[in-house]
Amino acid sequence: MKLFDQARDMLAQAAETSGIDLSAASLVVGVSGGPDSLALLAVLGQLLTPEQLIVAHLDHGLRPESAAEALSVEAMAQGLRFHSERVDVAQVAQAAHLSLEEAARVARYDFLARVARREGAPVIVTGHHAGDQAETVLMHLLRGSGLAGLRGMRPAARLPGHPDLWLWRPLLSLGRAVLSAYCVEHDLRPLHDASNNDPAFFRNRLRHELLPALESYSPQIRQRLTHLAEIVAADEALLEDRTARAWDDIYLDGDAAHSALRLDEWRALPLGLRRRTLRRAIAALRPDLRDVGFRALEAARLVAERGATGAQAALPGGLALSVGYGRLLVASAAHDPAAGLPQLPTATARPLPVPGAVDLAGGWRITAERVTVDFAAIAGNRDPWTAYLAPEMAQLVVRGRMPGEHIRPLGLQGETKIKEVMIDRKLPAAARALWPVIATAAHPVWLPSLLLDERARVHPDDTDVIRLRCLPPDRT
Amino acid sequence: MKLFDQARDMLAQAAETSGIDLSAASLVVGVSGGPDSLALLAVLGQLLTPEQLIVAHLDHGLRPESAAEALSVEAMAQGLRFHSERVDVAQVAQAAHLSLEEAARVARYDFLARVARREGAPVIVTGHHAGDQAETVLMHLLRGSGLAGLRGMRPAARLPGHPDLWLWRPLLSLGRAVLSAYCVEHDLRPLHDASNNDPAFFRNRLRHELLPALESYSPQIRQRLTHLAEIVAADEALLEDRTARAWDDIYLDGDAAHSALRLDEWRALPLGLRRRTLRRAIAALRPDLRDVGFRALEAARLVAERGATGAQAALPGGLALSVGYGRLLVASAAHDPAAGLPQLPTATARPLPVPGAVDLAGGWRITAERVTVDFAAIAGNRDPWTAYLAPEMAQLVVRGRMPGEHIRPLGLQGETKIKEVMIDRKLPAAARALWPVIATAAHPVWLPSLLLDERARVHPDDTDVIRLRCLPPDRT
Repeated sequence: MKLFDQARDMLAQAAETSGIDLSAASLVVGVSGGPDSLALLAVLGQLLTPEQLIVAHLDHGLRPESAAEALSVEAMAQGLRFHSERVDVAQVAQAAHLSLEEAARVARYDFLARVARREGAPVIVTGHHAGDQAETVLMHLLRGSGLAGLRGMRPAARLPGHPDLWLWRPLLSLGRAVLSAYCVEHDLRPLHDASNNDPAFFRNRLRHELLPALESYSPQIRQRLTHLAEIVAADEALLEDRTARAWDDIYLDGDAAHSALRLDEWRALPLGLRRRTLRRAIAALRPDLRDVGFRALEAARLVAERGATGAQAALPGGLALSVGYGRLLVASAAHDPAAGLPQLPTATARPLPVPGAVDLAGGWRITAERVTVDFAAIAGNRDPWTAYLAPEMAQLVVRGRMPGEHIRPLGLQGETKIKEVMIDRKLPAAARALWPVIATAAHPVWLPSLLLDERARVHPDDTDVIRLRCLPPDRT
Repeated sequence: MKLFDQARDMLAQAAETSGIDLSAASLVVGVSGGPDSLALLAVLGQLLTPEQLIVAHLDHGLRPESAAEALSVEAMAQGLRFHSERVDVAQVAQAAHLSLEEAARVARYDFLARVARREGAPVIVTGHHAGDQAETVLMHLLRGSGLAGLRGMRPAARLPGHPDLWLWRPLLSLGRAVLSAYCVEHDLRPLHDASNNDPAFFRNRLRHELLPALESYSPQIRQRLTHLAEIVAADEALLEDRTARAWDDIYLDGDAAHSALRLDEWRALPLGLRRRTLRRAIAALRPDLRDVGFRALEAARLVAERGATGAQAALPGGLALSVGYGRLLVASAAHDPAAGLPQLPTATARPLPVPGAVDLAGGWRITAERVTVDFAAIAGNRDPWTAYLAPEMAQLVVRGRMPGEHIRPLGLQGETKIKEVMIDRKLPAAARALWPVIATAAHPVWLPSLLLDERARVHPDDTDVIRLRCLPPDRT
């Protein structure tokens, strides 16, 4: 009775995880008619009352005998409520550009969820077993996945897309052989589903070709994969908890179109949390995006870690990441890329008196003043939004860059185009034309957050110098 | 120059991780003469001075041409310090019961560590690349491993067994093809190692058979495995940090022979941390034990979670886990299993007056007193070290169990052998004979922490009752 005991324990655990009273709840049992679902139904029949059990069978319409099979399952479900439906999975697959397997999966869970809703049942139960779990883990490995994929299926989880329904898999730690033996022993007569041998299905190729090949390298490979799933499930729970706490610490604001994080605090997180919070920011905006590739995420992470204000990186799902003033922003790529950046109202030059100020768009400001600061403090300035100029740079204007205008980067030999500096520092194209340039009549002196001109350099014997600041709306 | 740039960045990162000054340190470079190590040596030659580089080549003595190859590598190392040694790896393998591959690995790192020590170099550098990494991850998957194995090789880590030496792998994110192309471009002439094609080596079968087979399921499998390693490395760092903090919270005491954890606090940890702290307790006593199997650990975990005081479970490496009084003990199986448990000095009966006390061995005590406690509190008692007896049970003794003695478990029908109760509750055999039995002249009434006898049951209308307590040394 190993199977019965284990299934009962797993069911009790699932009920506890879900906060559901096992003695009162209705359960929708997905029954294909194969050995797994028959054994499941038999075990549930011993543990629950007939009133609690609802049998659901989806006829995928993929094989001529499937309609007859639906009738057989109805007969097996005698004495229990029974729901059946026929779906043309091939048509669903074609219409939704899915593989047959994926379309069948989607149609099946959609059907089970509809039955659960119609019956007011909070739980769907399926007969997935350890063999299915090993295949699932292997599939995630092959397709590329972080840890979340390696944990495979879970014994109790909310049904994706239906947060009010639970999905339980009480046979998940039991092997296929144990289930078949149980059927023989209890005189259950499973249907034989010919599509389980069809090599057109990716899962069948794993089951019948790849896993046997892997067994020649590691005879215990199936157990190793299911054990890995168990280890990862618990470790992933720890990591999700840690990520949730980090998220609370760094989250600034957000809505359906953007998530903004505290830049400095994000940059101070350990690597694993920098990755996980980025994934979470993406998931907050695109909850249905299933695969966020490693390379795209890493490229964006590097921009987020090292990029200057305005730097941008593309993300999957039509999203973009951008570095703002103290903010790390994940937003729809259609989101105004110049939002949150200093922009001129027009490119026309306006004088910047010293002391004095010039207003930019959206509440940003450029301020100028004379200050007495020691040279070491100036040389040690790491704030890209503050610049110190030699005292003679008094006749200043604020304007847009000129076509083909050059600047002489402080501390370097020679000149470079302002446009190229902007491209190099990954300023979004839309933000470049109205990016403020502070200039004398003769040449530019400062591109806020980007570059100071060599000709404005403070010398060690300068006593009072000019301090420029570019201040965001909430600092003015 | 993608290879050069990446190798330089990884080297800088490795130096930072290790706290080593790259402009001054000596590096021992493991050079087989293959394309990986030649490209590595060429890159290092551009970044460091010849005085910093020490070339080390181990002749594994497995092929007739290996002696001539050692001379070729010496020629490649011209201008640099060079160390070479011949080891009969086949003999090492036989003597140490290792596979040829494992023996070669052990001999190689032992040699590199000796060279590093002789030269006063803090770092060993090897040419492992992304292809090696994919194979390593796959190998760990096949052999079964938790997350730590899936992170594969690390770009900078302490050399196992030599905590004062660092092992750097600056080419770890570069593909094999990039390295070969680099050799062609820079006119480097690698040696061809015929054993790289020998299917007797497990790694070669992975490289030439299994990985190509996996590519037919997932063309990007090598990259996926190396990406997985990168993800897992960062996640594992988070988990290790979390585990270290949990360990500090639950650690009671320990030495080379045992680690003791706070039982209740350990039981309150999330599953992932219960597993990880158990692994850590094992590693503290058996640092060289590489593979702690999942099943053995899970069986021990269940005993630790649910076992009564005295319950024991075997662990790998000749260790055992046991549940003590408020303690979870991991210790050598040779460790006295009765230590920390209540034991009689002899099995002879001694009277237990009410009120009064009887001393056990090692500072434990049994106390008896009359108390007025309401029946609900008695029925709700969850402390297995406290028992309430009906008031008429006044003539008590404390003694060892008698041969074949039976007890009537409270609340159950019928009798059971005391010996079987002890086996069932997993008391170590050595602790059973002297486990205290509190009894009247006619029958046993209490086995501390295990069982109360039906005949001693308190009735709802009893007013003052007898309270027995079994107290550990630090409570008396």
